[in-house]
Amino acid sequence: MTNLTRARVIALDWGTTRCRAYVLGDGGVVLSELESCSGVMAVSARACADGVPSAQVFEQVFDELCGEWLAEVPGIPVIACGMVGSNQGWAEAAYRRVPVDLSSPGPALTTVRTAAGVVVSIIPGLIFEAALPDVMRGEESQILGALAGAEGARTGGASAERIVLLPGTHSKWVRVVDTTVTDFTTCMTGEFYELLMKDSTLSLLAVRSDLPDWVAFERGLEVATSKAGIGGILNTAFSARTMVMTGALAPNQVEDYVSGLLIGHELAGIGASWLAGSSNEVLLCGSTQLNERYGRALELRGVTVALAVARSAAAGMWQVAVAAGLVQDPAAVGGSRHGARGPERSERDDAN
Amino acid sequence: MTNLTRARVIALDWGTTRCRAYVLGDGGVVLSELESCSGVMAVSARACADGVPSAQVFEQVFDELCGEWLAEVPGIPVIACGMVGSNQGWAEAAYRRVPVDLSSPGPALTTVRTAAGVVVSIIPGLIFEAALPDVMRGEESQILGALAGAEGARTGGASAERIVLLPGTHSKWVRVVDTTVTDFTTCMTGEFYELLMKDSTLSLLAVRSDLPDWVAFERGLEVATSKAGIGGILNTAFSARTMVMTGALAPNQVEDYVSGLLIGHELAGIGASWLAGSSNEVLLCGSTQLNERYGRALELRGVTVALAVARSAAAGMWQVAVAAGLVQDPAAVGGSRHGARGPERSERDDAN
Repeated sequence: MTNLTRARVIALDWGTTRCRAYVLGDGGVVLSELESCSGVMAVSARACADGVPSAQVFEQVFDELCGEWLAEVPGIPVIACGMVGSNQGWAEAAYRRVPVDLSSPGPALTTVRTAAGVVVSIIPGLIFEAALPDVMRGEESQILGALAGAEGARTGGASAERIVLLPGTHSKWVRVVDTTVTDFTTCMTGEFYELLMKDSTLSLLAVRSDLPDWVAFERGLEVATSKAGIGGILNTAFSARTMVMTGALAPNQVEDYVSGLLIGHELAGIGASWLAGSSNEVLLCGSTQLNERYGRALELRGVTVALAVARSAAAGMWQVAVAAGLVQDPAAVGGSRHGARGPERSERDDAN
Repeated sequence: MTNLTRARVIALDWGTTRCRAYVLGDGGVVLSELESCSGVMAVSARACADGVPSAQVFEQVFDELCGEWLAEVPGIPVIACGMVGSNQGWAEAAYRRVPVDLSSPGPALTTVRTAAGVVVSIIPGLIFEAALPDVMRGEESQILGALAGAEGARTGGASAERIVLLPGTHSKWVRVVDTTVTDFTTCMTGEFYELLMKDSTLSLLAVRSDLPDWVAFERGLEVATSKAGIGGILNTAFSARTMVMTGALAPNQVEDYVSGLLIGHELAGIGASWLAGSSNEVLLCGSTQLNERYGRALELRGVTVALAVARSAAAGMWQVAVAAGLVQDPAAVGGSRHGARGPERSERDDAN
């Protein structure tokens, strides 16, 4: 078992499909981590099947994941972000209205207390109130961690606008000035991919392939972002079928071709609109696999890509835990091994 | 039972999800009709479950649907169109390469013979060979019937280009000059609707409604066709979720809002491109329900809508049966009760 004598906080990135749990030391250093596929959807399903309140299942999963850590470090604070704070989660946390400075203390964290007396503090999500409103839960913590790990503002001291892109089931395009989120929008690109590859006329003819076929992927990108893509994914998706029929595409290329079409349409739509007039640089914050796909797609369009640090949600939650007073960061009081550089920057740098 | 003494041909519109069977009299008049939900997909599934060749199941379904007609009118010819002619169908029919004059005799029809000796003749589909190829099966017969029932060329004798739109699971936009198909493209709009409403994060919060909510539908159209729709359906779909969360949309409006979004994006993409510079009139050829949705959407964009005659596939198959010599049309030999106006026009007019 890992030596947890330096453990300061347990951080849970508890989303729709997975729960990632971390033990963090000073500066947000990851000392130990575990992952469970008991995301919020699986918890809801289990509660429904067993006829018990979902809070009971959340507590069971939490105990299974973190029980040994809690036994070793009794009284360690626990912080969480993601869909665990939604109305289908463990307890409903607030939304902060954009624009929001992520580094400023927000409303009090929503807390839930387990039977054993452990208090879990849930970070609020963000809401963008507009004719078409938008919401996020969990990504706000990833962004905070990603910004800490990214290069500083390229224009020196002046406020610089960044585009942060978080690909996933629901990919988020986020406009950030310093640490303030000013705008964001969601594309259901990953979910459309799952729907098309699970039970559609395209999934019927697709043959699964173990390795990515980059030729097929880039062909999809090219179709979506050229004049042939003008009709959008509703129109281009059918070409996956007809090209297999005519022999222009192999059945084991269908998945990557469709992936390229979808990401290409996301970039041709929201991407083109968001990147016009911007610094033409994107901070990419997703899984290794999705970062590679979006990175290729963005670079083919001449966009500079910076990759966020790994475990950016954990790094962001560390900062929120410090700001909320759940833990004290030695760096913030001038005692960091990285030297005293003032609280705001050093916290974020330490998260590396 | 209907009196079938004037029966000339049995026509089957056998698609992916349904089989519509007609007994046609002179001029393509519908004397009797039946419908089965044993479409090509259901037949394949039954054959697979029973471990028998799918041809055997096609024959069973055909006997169930048409057995009484065949007993009453032995030797009546049988013609068919649709996915029944695909590589998952009863027998694989050819594709004719666009441009194709639908009123001209094409390649020989593909035939299949039942155990009882009944010969079923299957009409070829169309293929548009391009970088992104496209195909249709069944719609070519609907178009032929729809053109016969539509007003003549508005410019008098000169060749006039028409846009025929056939909404459905896979909606087809078809460019036609006189009776020649010169171009077509497919949007998977109906299939995307089914996917989103069956098993997605949107279907989870949608509450089924019995009557169409036209306010919600037109709100979806407006979003898709305005600046808010620039990111395409991948982006706007998420608003169905967030608007329910904020109370801006009721759960029982989700289905019609998403329907409006999808049809709106189809029109903003392919529609805008296909209608630019055209006569700004569309011949709409779908189910009553889809015709109403697409009709409203087109008219809101200032497009004039003409509705195709009902049972246009039957009308088209009658013409093909005559052209292929399966039946002789009295009108074509000058004996029509509508008067002798030359074979080409009278055949089509009789199909009304």
